[in-house]
Amino acid sequence: MNPSNLSPIVAGVWRMAEWNWTPQQRLRWIEQCLERGITSFDHADIYGGYTVEALFGQALALSPGLRHRMQLVTKCGIKLVHAQRPAHQVKSYDTSAAHVVASVDNSLRELGTDHLDLLLIHRPDTLMNPQELAQTFERLHRQGKVRSFGVSNHSVSQFALLHRQHPLVTNQIECSVLQMKALADGTLDQCLELGIRPMVWSPLGGGRLFTAQDEQASRVRAVLQKLAQEYRATPATMALAWLLRHPSRPIPITGSQRVQALDEAVAALSIGLSAEHWYELWQASMGHGVP
Amino acid sequence: MNPSNLSPIVAGVWRMAEWNWTPQQRLRWIEQCLERGITSFDHADIYGGYTVEALFGQALALSPGLRHRMQLVTKCGIKLVHAQRPAHQVKSYDTSAAHVVASVDNSLRELGTDHLDLLLIHRPDTLMNPQELAQTFERLHRQGKVRSFGVSNHSVSQFALLHRQHPLVTNQIECSVLQMKALADGTLDQCLELGIRPMVWSPLGGGRLFTAQDEQASRVRAVLQKLAQEYRATPATMALAWLLRHPSRPIPITGSQRVQALDEAVAALSIGLSAEHWYELWQASMGHGVP
Amino acid sequence: MNPSNLSPIVAGVWRMAEWNWTPQQRLRWIEQCLERGITSFDHADIYGGYTVEALFGQALALSPGLRHRMQLVTKCGIKLVHAQRPAHQVKSYDTSAAHVVASVDNSLRELGTDHLDLLLIHRPDTLMNPQELAQTFERLHRQGKVRSFGVSNHSVSQFALLHRQHPLVTNQIECSVLQMKALADGTLDQCLELGIRPMVWSPLGGGRLFTAQDEQASRVRAVLQKLAQEYRATPATMALAWLLRHPSRPIPITGSQRVQALDEAVAALSIGLSAEHWYELWQASMGHGVP
Repeated sequence: MNPSNLSPIVAGVWRMAEWNWTPQQRLRWIEQCLERGITSFDHADIYGGYTVEALFGQALALSPGLRHRMQLVTKCGIKLVHAQRPAHQVKSYDTSAAHVVASVDNSLRELGTDHLDLLLIHRPDTLMNPQELAQTFERLHRQGKVRSFGVSNHSVSQFALLHRQHPLVTNQIECSVLQMKALADGTLDQCLELGIRPMVWSPLGGGRLFTAQDEQASRVRAVLQKLAQEYRATPATMALAWLLRHPSRPIPITGSQRVQALDEAVAALSIGLSAEHWYELWQASMGHGVP
Repeated sequence: MNPSNLSPIVAGVWRMAEWNWTPQQRLRWIEQCLERGITSFDHADIYGGYTVEALFGQALALSPGLRHRMQLVTKCGIKLVHAQRPAHQVKSYDTSAAHVVASVDNSLRELGTDHLDLLLIHRPDTLMNPQELAQTFERLHRQGKVRSFGVSNHSVSQFALLHRQHPLVTNQIECSVLQMKALADGTLDQCLELGIRPMVWSPLGGGRLFTAQDEQASRVRAVLQKLAQEYRATPATMALAWLLRHPSRPIPITGSQRVQALDEAVAALSIGLSAEHWYELWQASMGHGVP
Repeated sequence: MNPSNLSPIVAGVWRMAEWNWTPQQRLRWIEQCLERGITSFDHADIYGGYTVEALFGQALALSPGLRHRMQLVTKCGIKLVHAQRPAHQVKSYDTSAAHVVASVDNSLRELGTDHLDLLLIHRPDTLMNPQELAQTFERLHRQGKVRSFGVSNHSVSQFALLHRQHPLVTNQIECSVLQMKALADGTLDQCLELGIRPMVWSPLGGGRLFTAQDEQASRVRAVLQKLAQEYRATPATMALAWLLRHPSRPIPITGSQRVQALDEAVAALSIGLSAEHWYELWQASMGHGVP
């Protein structure tokens, strides 16, 4: 799978366990995503304390035909200290063949599917052996269990190291009008150079954009509100439009249970933010104009 | 044009508007540069609030034959909020085809020339689309309007990104015995690796070297004065000789209106600074010896 | 020589002058290293104020047959201000052909050998001309004086710059459970990418691990002691086992005169530290868990 097969907005299910929904409610939400063209769902083995994949799988089991209309993304590589995993003593990373294969098999079982569309290594594992991990990827691909591979939160040199051994289709990173590190540290330059589209988590600053009282958030909020009027959209839509303006064509992950939030995310795809407005938001975030 | 076609010292006209000179005085200064082998002139569309290119062009018009004895460098990509550009609401960057082409056409008109020898993108534009900008460069080159292309103030990954799409002949950066960031962050390593000569702005620390009272400037000044006696030169000449000693063969830009400053810059080309003296100045700048 | 020809633990003689030993005692220590499979010895021209190479050479002269059972590594490029080098006015670096060749010739003379197995440039020299230095390396190799070349304390871009001109077999860097910079700044990623094994100085934090009273050292020490019991080894062995676990297969340098320290270092080669324990030490060093 090419990452461009992901929908332009991805639904993140990070918090699905907290929604305390019935399987039927979860299914309804999935359908609402699909109706809006949000066909890709972003999981990780550890979300909800190792419970979200099963919650999603239960809902999907109520309407199995939906599987071929969606793309399932999950992650592995983090070992949480958790009642669900009593053997873990310390939070650690593991990209050994044994752990990755067992994690994938478990994700397939929980999600109730025979394949993942995209598997991401959740965090850079200092002990990762690139050759060994590439072999694991090839084996999972040959077995039809995983269609494509990527990483999350990897630095430029960490990404290059694994990409050289096995083609990666994305680096899922944090980026928002409140968190611009990836713009300057070479991460997005690497995406452009390799023709890879980044997936982006916390594209609204994890909610800070709308609730935080610090000066940065206040400045950005004011400009978002002004632009929202100008573009006849909501501030959330404008914040996502800011992200979508980057030439690497980022794919934002929306983590909300609210239908309105899904609509606001999709609306951002139709906003053609001007470069000058993009820099006006940059300035509000940084607290000073461009050099 | 290969950047080695630039003269080893370049005259910067950043402040020409502040000199309050007649066209005849400006012409005389240009001739004095040429007489000293300073045949390249560094412009930007925005210098003097969008006025310097025209001031230079007026002088050149008094002696049009000088054009073929000089190289004209200019920059674009910054949009200032300025009375001359009432449409601009926020200081921003723009590397779209429309803006770059319009800026080049305007520079040609103001300078009164049919071609630029070198066009630089003034600052890294986060929204820059490398493929699109490379196509713009090719079009400007094909039309005979611009002979060669480069950038200014670009990081290593930003430079690589564009260089991969279109060969760049230089990265114009800040570097001086008071500002050594480019020595350590890979910028000059990249120049060496690619065989590209950097142009250098503020090679005398923007004058801070001779006026600032802080400890760093005081330490450096003391060593420059000692070495000036030893090499029978001025402190300014020694500061430029320090820069010229780097193996990437930097091309310093002198921004002074004074003939004596031009002479001091040219004199630096004949100083063979010893490595030990180079490190003595490094130590004075850092406030500690090498590790 | 391929760096894999170095022994998996290298003996560093940095402090040999301080040991105040007779040539016979030094010979005995060398034999004790060899008996344990520590067959590579790490020198630098400047160790002991330009005296250690000769101290080692005097011992080796007592048993010249040992030379073909060991690998000699030395470094050059730093010029100390020292009574032994009255011409030096300022501590500086020098990678000119003249200095490197003279330094190698002197090292050969002091060590009483006809060749070095590995020559390292001790610190990155900003004035280094990569082409010129590569030619110097080729000349020294052709003359049979030096079998292979590397660097020490070089950044990723500094390493790449010289490696492109002449293959380097190692980057000798600092790394330990107390000093993890090389894990995150791309240095070890580069080693993995190029298939180059790093040599590692201060793998026990320069002794800080066992003596320092700060919080970081205290936290790490507590975990090392716990793991030492679990793996039936000493804390020093566990600290080296932590380093050896990295996929770049680092080669630690032990700088101790004590036979027990040599044994503890060799013992680390047989410890298969678990990934979880590796991260437990990471956590103790950082003061927080992995993200």
